[in-house]
Amino acid sequence: MHNVKKVTDLIGDDGKQYIKEHITELHPADIADIIETLDEEKKKELFNLLHTEIASKVIVEVNEHSRDQILEDINKEKLTDIVEEMSSDDAADLIADLPKEEAKDILEKLHWEDSTEVQKLLKYPEDTAGGIMQTELLSVREEMLVEDAIIQLMALSENIGDVPIVKHEMPISGIIDRNVISVNVNEDQEEVANIFKKYDLISLAVVDDDSRLVGRIQIDDIVDVLVEEASEDMLHMAGIYQDEKIMDPPLKSVRMRLPWLVINLATATLAASVVGLFQDTLQAMVILAMFMPIVAGMGGNAGTQALTVTIRGIALGELSFNNAKRAVLNGITIGVLNGVVTGVIMALIAYYWKGNYMLGIVLGLAMMVNLFIANFFGIIIPLVLKWLKIDPAVASSIFLTALTDCIGFFSFLGLATLFIKYLV
Amino acid sequence: MHNVKKVTDLIGDDGKQYIKEHITELHPADIADIIETLDEEKKKELFNLLHTEIASKVIVEVNEHSRDQILEDINKEKLTDIVEEMSSDDAADLIADLPKEEAKDILEKLHWEDSTEVQKLLKYPEDTAGGIMQTELLSVREEMLVEDAIIQLMALSENIGDVPIVKHEMPISGIIDRNVISVNVNEDQEEVANIFKKYDLISLAVVDDDSRLVGRIQIDDIVDVLVEEASEDMLHMAGIYQDEKIMDPPLKSVRMRLPWLVINLATATLAASVVGLFQDTLQAMVILAMFMPIVAGMGGNAGTQALTVTIRGIALGELSFNNAKRAVLNGITIGVLNGVVTGVIMALIAYYWKGNYMLGIVLGLAMMVNLFIANFFGIIIPLVLKWLKIDPAVASSIFLTALTDCIGFFSFLGLATLFIKYLV
Repeated sequence: MHNVKKVTDLIGDDGKQYIKEHITELHPADIADIIETLDEEKKKELFNLLHTEIASKVIVEVNEHSRDQILEDINKEKLTDIVEEMSSDDAADLIADLPKEEAKDILEKLHWEDSTEVQKLLKYPEDTAGGIMQTELLSVREEMLVEDAIIQLMALSENIGDVPIVKHEMPISGIIDRNVISVNVNEDQEEVANIFKKYDLISLAVVDDDSRLVGRIQIDDIVDVLVEEASEDMLHMAGIYQDEKIMDPPLKSVRMRLPWLVINLATATLAASVVGLFQDTLQAMVILAMFMPIVAGMGGNAGTQALTVTIRGIALGELSFNNAKRAVLNGITIGVLNGVVTGVIMALIAYYWKGNYMLGIVLGLAMMVNLFIANFFGIIIPLVLKWLKIDPAVASSIFLTALTDCIGFFSFLGLATLFIKYLV
Repeated sequence: MHNVKKVTDLIGDDGKQYIKEHITELHPADIADIIETLDEEKKKELFNLLHTEIASKVIVEVNEHSRDQILEDINKEKLTDIVEEMSSDDAADLIADLPKEEAKDILEKLHWEDSTEVQKLLKYPEDTAGGIMQTELLSVREEMLVEDAIIQLMALSENIGDVPIVKHEMPISGIIDRNVISVNVNEDQEEVANIFKKYDLISLAVVDDDSRLVGRIQIDDIVDVLVEEASEDMLHMAGIYQDEKIMDPPLKSVRMRLPWLVINLATATLAASVVGLFQDTLQAMVILAMFMPIVAGMGGNAGTQALTVTIRGIALGELSFNNAKRAVLNGITIGVLNGVVTGVIMALIAYYWKGNYMLGIVLGLAMMVNLFIANFFGIIIPLVLKWLKIDPAVASSIFLTALTDCIGFFSFLGLATLFIKYLV
C-alpha cells in the first residue's frame, strides 16, 4: 500500500518522469493493482507512461472494468504494438473483447504470422482447451542434437521457459518422452484443469481431431481456470448465472441476479398453492402456520448440503455414472439418519413448547420425510442434469428447492389433516 | 476404464506377474485410480506388488480412505523405504496422518537427515506456507559458475526440475534475480495461493521471521490448495464444516452435516416464534399463511446471492476494508432494485390470484423490505466476521438466514396486522 500511495501522489504533477523511471522496478501485477485504485483519467495517464513491453503485461493483469476504461480511446498504433508483444493466447483474449470494427482493424495492422495465429485461436470457444492454449510451439526432428534444439528455442523467444537438465550432445530421440499426455482442442477447460491436477502437470500439449499438435497450455492459465470454475459453481448454485465480481456496477449485478429471483417467485408460488390445499386445517389450528416453514426450510438446508457435495464431486471428477450407485446409497443413509435426529429434536421442541405431543409427532415425521427427500434428490437431480448435458450447478437448486418446499408443506400439513382430531 | 477392468481381472490369480511387469507403464495417478475401485484386500495386494519408487508416488495420489486401508497393516520396513523415496513435504504429510506410535517408529528408522527435515516440517500447521513447503534446497555462492551449480543440482536429485537456459560459463551472480518474491513460513496457505495466482509463479521461496530461506513451495501443491480452498468456502456456506468428499462413508458425512442442521433448527424455531406473535392476524385471515414463506424464502435467496459474491470477493482478495464502502453502496442499490421488481411482480400475482389488492400491496412492501435487508447484510455480515477474524464462509449464512426469516415474517405479518381491516 505504501507504493500505491506514493505513485498516486506523484502522477499528474512533476512526478511523471519519476514514475516513468521507477515503475519498471515494480511487478506488472503490482502496477495493475495501482491502476485499479485510480480514477479513469489517471488510469489512462499512468498506462500511457508505461513502455510497450510492460504495458502488454499490465493490461493482462488489470480487471475487466479497468481494461475497458484503458482501451476505450487508446491510440491504435500503440495498441497494435502492445498486442505484438503478447503471447498468442493473451492477444486473442484481448482482441476478442474489443468492438468488432476495432478488432478487425488491429488484426490487419498486426504482422502476418501473429495475425494468423490469433485468428486461429479466436475460432475456439473461450472455455475449451483451444480457448486457453497458446500456439507458440517449436517442433524438432528426432535426430537433432539437444544442443541445437536449445539454440532454436532461444532464437524463438527469450521467455520460452525452462528445459530439463540433460546431456547436450545427445540427439533429441534420447530424451524423447513418448508417453506425452495431451488433450483435444475442443475439450472443456474444466476437464483440462482436472488433467493438470491429476497428473501434476506444468504444461500440456493440445492436439486436433487428427492428433496433430496445435498448441500448448501453461499451468498459470490453468490456475485461473481452477479459480474461475470453482467460483462459477458457487455462483451458479446461488443463482448467479455469470461470473459476477464484487466490484461490478450494481446494474450489471441486478441483471445477473434477477432471473433467478423471478424463477424462485414462480416455484415459491407453486409451494404456496400446496399450502392453499390445507386452508381448513390451518383455520382449525393456526399454530401449524408457525411450524410449517421449519419443515420446508430444513429440507432446503439439507438439500443444499447434499447438492454442494454432489456438484463438487462431479466438478472434481470424483463422481461419475460408474460410482453413482454408492453415492446414492450413501445419500439415502445420510437422509434417514439426519432426518431421524433432527425430527426427534424438533418433535421434543414442539412438545415442550406447545405441550402437544401429537404436534411433535406430526412435525418429527414430516421432517424425516423431507430430509430423506432432500438428501436423495440432492444426489439424483445433479446426476440427471449431468446426464442430460445440463450444468448441474446452474439448474439443480431450482428443482430441489421447489421439491423440498412442496414436499415439506405437503407432508406436514397432510399429516396434520390426517390426525387433526388428535391435534386440536 | 478399459485398463481398470483388465487390472481388476488379473489381480489375485496368475496375472500377478503380468501386473508387476506392466503396471510401471501406467502413470502413478492412474494406478491410484485403479486402486480406489478395488476392495480392501485387493487394494493391499496390488499396492504390495508395486516397486518402492512407484509405491511412494501412488500413495500420495490415492484418496484418504484408500490410503488408510493400505497403511493399516503395512510392513514397517517397506513403509520406511517408501517414505525415504518421498519429497520432504509428502513424507511429512504421510507421517502426520499415522498413529503417534507408528509415526515415532518410522521417524527413528529414517536416515538421520530425512528424519530431521520431516520433523522440522511437522511443526508447522497444515494450512500454512510451512505446512505445504518442501525443504529440498540447494544454496550456492555468487561466485560459483552456473555449470558447477547445475552439477551440484543434478547430484542432489535427478528430479529437481528444470533450470533456465543460460550461458553455463557465467558466474551465478550474473543470472541472480534479486527481486525474488517470498512468503513467511507462517503465512496462511490461501494467501500463498493468491500470491502464486497474482504473480503467475511456478515456485516460491519460503523464509522464516529472520528472512532466512527455509523451503520452497511448488505450483502443483498450490493447485491442490486452490481447489481445496474454493471447495471449502462452498462447503462452509452450505453448512459443512470439514472437507467432505462425495465418497466419504455416510456416518462421517452425518457427523459433518448435523451440527449445522441443529443450529438451523434453533434459528428456525426463533423465526417460528416471530410467526407466533401474529396468531390473531393469521386466525383472522388464514391465507396469509400461504404467502408468508414466500417473503422469507425470497429474502433467503437474495441473501445467498449477496453472500456468495461477497465471500468470493474476500477469498480472491478483491474486497477489503479499503474498498468496502463501494461494495456496500452497490449492495444497497441492488437490494432496492431487486426488491422493487420482485415486490411488484409478487403483488400482481397475489392480486390476480386472490383478487385482493391490499394483500398485493402488503406482500410487495414486505418483499422490498426483506430483499433490501438481505442484500445489505449479505455484505455487512461477512465483512464484520472477517474483521472479527472469523471465517465469513463458515458463519455468515447462519446469521443471515435467521435475519431474513425473522424480518420476512415480521414485516409481512406486521404490515398485515396494521392493515388488517382493509385486508379481510
